[in-house]
Amino acid sequence: MRSETEMNSPNDPPRTMRWNGGPEGTLTMIDQTLLPVEFREIECRTVEEVWEAIKMLRVRGAPAIGCAAAYGVVLGLQAGIDAMNRVAFDARLQEVADYLAGSRPTAVNLFWALDRIRKVAGEQTSLSPQEMHARLLDEAKAIEAEDREMCAAIGRNGASLLTEGMGVLTHCNAGGLATAGDGTALAVMFAAAAMGKNIQVYADETRPLLQGARLTTWELQQRGVPVTLICDNMAGWVMKEKRVQAVITGADRIAANGDSANKIGTYSVALLAKAHGIPFYVAAPSSTFDLSLKTGDEIPIEERNSEEITKGHGRQTAPEGTTVYNPAFDVTPAEYIEAIITERGLIRPVTEQNVRQMVEH
Amino acid sequence: MRSETEMNSPNDPPRTMRWNGGPEGTLTMIDQTLLPVEFREIECRTVEEVWEAIKMLRVRGAPAIGCAAAYGVVLGLQAGIDAMNRVAFDARLQEVADYLAGSRPTAVNLFWALDRIRKVAGEQTSLSPQEMHARLLDEAKAIEAEDREMCAAIGRNGASLLTEGMGVLTHCNAGGLATAGDGTALAVMFAAAAMGKNIQVYADETRPLLQGARLTTWELQQRGVPVTLICDNMAGWVMKEKRVQAVITGADRIAANGDSANKIGTYSVALLAKAHGIPFYVAAPSSTFDLSLKTGDEIPIEERNSEEITKGHGRQTAPEGTTVYNPAFDVTPAEYIEAIITERGLIRPVTEQNVRQMVEH
Repeated sequence: MRSETEMNSPNDPPRTMRWNGGPEGTLTMIDQTLLPVEFREIECRTVEEVWEAIKMLRVRGAPAIGCAAAYGVVLGLQAGIDAMNRVAFDARLQEVADYLAGSRPTAVNLFWALDRIRKVAGEQTSLSPQEMHARLLDEAKAIEAEDREMCAAIGRNGASLLTEGMGVLTHCNAGGLATAGDGTALAVMFAAAAMGKNIQVYADETRPLLQGARLTTWELQQRGVPVTLICDNMAGWVMKEKRVQAVITGADRIAANGDSANKIGTYSVALLAKAHGIPFYVAAPSSTFDLSLKTGDEIPIEERNSEEITKGHGRQTAPEGTTVYNPAFDVTPAEYIEAIITERGLIRPVTEQNVRQMVEH
Repeated sequence: MRSETEMNSPNDPPRTMRWNGGPEGTLTMIDQTLLPVEFREIECRTVEEVWEAIKMLRVRGAPAIGCAAAYGVVLGLQAGIDAMNRVAFDARLQEVADYLAGSRPTAVNLFWALDRIRKVAGEQTSLSPQEMHARLLDEAKAIEAEDREMCAAIGRNGASLLTEGMGVLTHCNAGGLATAGDGTALAVMFAAAAMGKNIQVYADETRPLLQGARLTTWELQQRGVPVTLICDNMAGWVMKEKRVQAVITGADRIAANGDSANKIGTYSVALLAKAHGIPFYVAAPSSTFDLSLKTGDEIPIEERNSEEITKGHGRQTAPEGTTVYNPAFDVTPAEYIEAIITERGLIRPVTEQNVRQMVEH
């Protein structure tokens, strides 16, 4: 089942997505819903297939969704392009972009990538449809390449925080599967491992959707970085047992003062790290910062379906009618964050002044 | 599926076990492996059926196992009793008790209950087999009654710690299903609710085996006490949101200084409670104390099968070959425990002197 992965060497991890060929090509992506039981790639030939892949979480993680959407536009412009004039092409572009924007209404990188594609087309009105199509493929590739470079830079900037023999705990999946590159939190670990440092990762399974168990362990296995899976409620105990010397997680949105929203459970991990004198780091690109929000209190917390908890693994695990509280995120106050690792450098200490200095242009 | 339960009023909760009739009777128990999807009682007619029920966790929780084993001896002495003299009866008693002791070698109450039954027989050598059989049934009933009274006393002693409108978080199942009565931690909540206090319980689902999701929510629903199920990693966040004003858990073993071993995750909950200024209580009978252990460092921590985590819900949720760390228990240092609620009263503050004063005879 995993023959394709097994052909990858540690230096050649499976790519979340890759474009095949020229403007008339296709988009291959890992179907993340099948991991870790099955490694299977899907080849999208139409914009509808990309829309479905985003909608159904076959591709997930804000940066990865942005890249997939940009390629989706290229696919959506293939049919009938030879018969189009530029007006028809531009109309079709708007139609395709609007369609993709409806796949997941909350992922901010989706809109960002589609706007960027639209802007390029708006600036290049003299090109023919065929020329514009080729130019948009270049832009989609640029978005992907920049995302890969962002991941690499986060890895470089954070790698020195990890030292030989360290145990490093992470929560959820802030890895390559959420980006086009090496990820954010996991990029730091991959970079440290590439420098020859022997680290031992502890991965919280991350209830209810188990991104840690399903995706983080898989990625680290693929790359040959030692990883031990634990239940979320074991995080404090592995700290008490001195198995962990650093914690790194990703972030979904960061306020101007450094308060960081991330997968539910991150807040508890940060407090437990503090109680044990263990540094807690957040790894995230500058695009994750929302400077319009003064503090984390302004970050809205999405509450999700109760069945994620009561029927999450194919079996009913709580009585019918059980009341459930299922916040998808929580907010870790800046005071618990030792540093934020960005592609531009470290924000340390995490203060509004330091955040603005690093993030504002 | 739940017709039997639905007939129970809040004042008449389903009993973990009950004996039907005289010495020739049967033992009815809730099959806890089917909860919460199905409420079904099993009627054990032979000692072999009781052995199987303990082995397969149809009945679980140290006090409940002790009671079931005592009744199991009575069942094991039914066959052929009319043809036995007292020597044959005593030999059969030893055989049956030894057999039951092999069902779960780690549950301390199992051995305690069987020893108590053996001791009664050893002291009453003048009774006929039939008289002795009836006497042992009385002893089994006494063990069950004492367990029920222990639960009730813990409830009474702890109820005043909970006040009107309080949110109370618990971890794992320290409820009636683990005892013959109302449980330990849950007994406190039931007692407070019976006094008319409106409390809101938050139940950690308790990975990997989900005793909180499967059993604690079920018991509270049965008794009409409002309960909200959360994932373990949400405990810190519900404290931050001020939904919780007290935490009560059970304990599996308590050292002389008050350090308390309990289900994995209890340590993290205690630290998180401390960080939020929320009192953390342990509810446990005096039989849970092991005064031969000076501190919790001496309590051995059982490590369990990795498949509890990777395949715990009927579906594989981590890659093949994933390294797993699965400690079944952790130890909460006495300094994080506001009080220990026993059937004899509160130990508060939790110091070795106060522990010995309460527990030593």
